[in-house]
Amino acid sequence: MDIEDLAARIEAGERRALARAITLVESGRADHREQATALLDRLRGGGREGLRIGLSGTPGVGKSTFIEAFGMMLTAQGLKVAVLAVDPSSARSGGSILGDKTRMERLSRDRNAFIRPSPAQAQLGGVARRTREAIGLCEAAGFDVILIETVGVGQSETMVADMSDLFLLLLAPAGGDELQGVKRGIMESADIILVNKADGELKSAATRTCADYAGALRLLRKRPQDPEGFPKALTVSALEEAGLAKAWQEMLALVGWRREAGQFDARRSEQARHWFEAEVREGLLARLRQEPVRGAMAALAQRVEQGDLSPARAAEEILQTYLRGFAGKGS
Amino acid sequence: MDIEDLAARIEAGERRALARAITLVESGRADHREQATALLDRLRGGGREGLRIGLSGTPGVGKSTFIEAFGMMLTAQGLKVAVLAVDPSSARSGGSILGDKTRMERLSRDRNAFIRPSPAQAQLGGVARRTREAIGLCEAAGFDVILIETVGVGQSETMVADMSDLFLLLLAPAGGDELQGVKRGIMESADIILVNKADGELKSAATRTCADYAGALRLLRKRPQDPEGFPKALTVSALEEAGLAKAWQEMLALVGWRREAGQFDARRSEQARHWFEAEVREGLLARLRQEPVRGAMAALAQRVEQGDLSPARAAEEILQTYLRGFAGKGS
Repeated sequence: MDIEDLAARIEAGERRALARAITLVESGRADHREQATALLDRLRGGGREGLRIGLSGTPGVGKSTFIEAFGMMLTAQGLKVAVLAVDPSSARSGGSILGDKTRMERLSRDRNAFIRPSPAQAQLGGVARRTREAIGLCEAAGFDVILIETVGVGQSETMVADMSDLFLLLLAPAGGDELQGVKRGIMESADIILVNKADGELKSAATRTCADYAGALRLLRKRPQDPEGFPKALTVSALEEAGLAKAWQEMLALVGWRREAGQFDARRSEQARHWFEAEVREGLLARLRQEPVRGAMAALAQRVEQGDLSPARAAEEILQTYLRGFAGKGS
Repeated sequence: MDIEDLAARIEAGERRALARAITLVESGRADHREQATALLDRLRGGGREGLRIGLSGTPGVGKSTFIEAFGMMLTAQGLKVAVLAVDPSSARSGGSILGDKTRMERLSRDRNAFIRPSPAQAQLGGVARRTREAIGLCEAAGFDVILIETVGVGQSETMVADMSDLFLLLLAPAGGDELQGVKRGIMESADIILVNKADGELKSAATRTCADYAGALRLLRKRPQDPEGFPKALTVSALEEAGLAKAWQEMLALVGWRREAGQFDARRSEQARHWFEAEVREGLLARLRQEPVRGAMAALAQRVEQGDLSPARAAEEILQTYLRGFAGKGS
């Protein structure tokens, strides 16, 4: 593969080249990994930077409808919008159950939009790397806004929040005054809560739910990365395309404040460091899945299961046999 | 330290020797670790096995009162009872806020009981190892029942469930018909749910809550490790010492069934294998916190933060510099 050619075509905004590059970073093959790293290195420093917006919402809140309406609004303003999906559950089904493009038909036909479904990978660590790298590729391709959406299963919300400049939580109107069992940790990482379906019969419920969340957000400790009034809760109607411009305005206000305060760059630096550390950990643990360690572990595991060997002793055996030299640089 | 002497005194049931051995397995020092592994090896195969009961309950459900009453009932039957606390939050406060012995005054004076507060360790991995090893020590010391209690913060419930033969969830009566936001995963790992405070004014609320949980449990898929009727929900009153004998009877019935069906041993084998694998991972990652890797990572992290180097490239540099030889056995 001609990395230089691929890089040039990505920078020229060729969507097929971008799609191909993302497939490359998703690959588990060692030679592909080398090419991917070379490509990412080549594209670094191009100076192009998009706004990375994380978006979480459980099935049923109208996430696809929201992304489509929000994305169309942005492309109508001349912005280029990329949508990356992170769905850990797709590892089981071998891909999203509904193709993401079918879900967002209008947006997928928009020349200023690029939609990439979730890859079918078993490990969240792998999904995280692929997504972070795909973000970098989209930025190099000149996308202004990168929406990273997740269904919010397990750790995926935290993961997406950790790679975004802004994190949005999309919710549906709740019945009565109960909050929808949103995990506290997620509430705390949300910058803006959007209560969708503020239309028709659900409009008043949406307004009430929004007020409930606004109240709950006020109870949280103010974060240093927020100006007065943030995090905040807003109502939107993806269906009627209402409240979207207001939401975008709030996002820009928050980002503007953070840039001014130096928080924007500080957050990106911190994210890059975390990413580096996670990559080292992942790379290290990956060795355990390779031969000969893999086979040796399986054999010892059997003896541990049979009670012939204590878990601690068996672990020591693996570490001493295969880790000589590690952390000693040849010692 | 004379490991042979310590082992003999543990096997003779000396509580001070047991306490000293647990301190040894809690230590982070490399020489202590070696001694601990030697001690655990020496004590293996003694053929003594206790029943490992995990117990989770948030503050306020009456966990200490329950453990005291339940423990006293068991010691009155001539059983030896050890209580190990797992409180991840104690890492911050440097130990449990209330000393566990103060919490269970009567039980702590009981000659057939042994109570060990949570160690002050930052990492859940470390707490897990210490607790698993402490269980082994208690069994070698002839304890019949080992209660492993946790406040159920973060991952600690799952961790405790993973090292127990039986897992109990202690809950307080709920107001109205709402379930208490118990995480689904925890419900699914509970063998018996105990609704405490079924006394005085709260008695009818406890009965109602118990019925709610019994209903919720029926909605869960039947697990292969359960006989008909399990998992189940029961009311207890630790204060009035009511329902405890019934609860114990149910625990014994479940354990008896699992032994019969081969599930008991199968679960222990599986737990041992998981423990082994976790130890290898932990041991591997521990190398990153040692020099010279630690220093090299800090230096690279700085370049990554400044944007001089991509996270992926920096990670590769660490892995290639320090992992030569690993997984190649000298290559």
